[in-house]
Amino acid sequence: MSALTPALRELLDGQVVGVLATEPDRGHLRQSVVYYVRDGERLLISSVAGRAKVRDVESAGWASLCVMVPQHPFPSATFSGRADVLTQGIGPATAAIAQRFMQADEPPEPQTDAALAAVGRVIIAIAIERVAAVSDLER
Amino acid sequence: MSALTPALRELLDGQVVGVLATEPDRGHLRQSVVYYVRDGERLLISSVAGRAKVRDVESAGWASLCVMVPQHPFPSATFSGRADVLTQGIGPATAAIAQRFMQADEPPEPQTDAALAAVGRVIIAIAIERVAAVSDLER
Repeated sequence: MSALTPALRELLDGQVVGVLATEPDRGHLRQSVVYYVRDGERLLISSVAGRAKVRDVESAGWASLCVMVPQHPFPSATFSGRADVLTQGIGPATAAIAQRFMQADEPPEPQTDAALAAVGRVIIAIAIERVAAVSDLER
Repeated sequence: MSALTPALRELLDGQVVGVLATEPDRGHLRQSVVYYVRDGERLLISSVAGRAKVRDVESAGWASLCVMVPQHPFPSATFSGRADVLTQGIGPATAAIAQRFMQADEPPEPQTDAALAAVGRVIIAIAIERVAAVSDLER
């Protein structure tokens, strides 16, 4: 069964950034603002191999993304679940996220996995297994 | 020495909500959108005794708040440090946060600690000891 109600899908598809939280091997959790795209029941985030958030996902296998509409009353929800760092077949998702980052009308031409690997690009993929802290959204 | 540069103070004072992340005793971290006010080098968040985020702060003594300007390129930073749950002298901060929540021109008359305790209200206070994930802000 899908964890995503129509209202949750609308929230995710209406925003371009969220706050990613990851769990390091040692020490406190880490939060940062990231661009994302939704792919069905997954959230895809573009990053660079070796970054702290990528290492966290590699070791913990889990991540959380909090997304909100940035106007009062700030409808929001937190999506979390198993997370993986992908390096194969990531061209289209990387292009879709780049489009959001660049505010372009069209996504750039997808690059090959080899070209993306050469510049260290990876995709963090979060499986939406849990939705929590739902606020001011239709259930 | 202050952890807050003028640009970071401006970020914090220009926004009314952020994404709070807390660390439970067991299980994964927890994220939710919260209203806050800055009090010098502290961030104050109004909540209710017994809520999961309050229990997390009580046990971990630490919390993180990620704040962003909600327009491209989404300037943002994550503030974290020692966190406490306050029940004394919380009337003015609770009123200041209520003003933001209600979008009122003036804060409501501060309530006494006894009146706030009767409805379970507490303040989560985060000491800004660390600033991380600073993005698109002047340093």
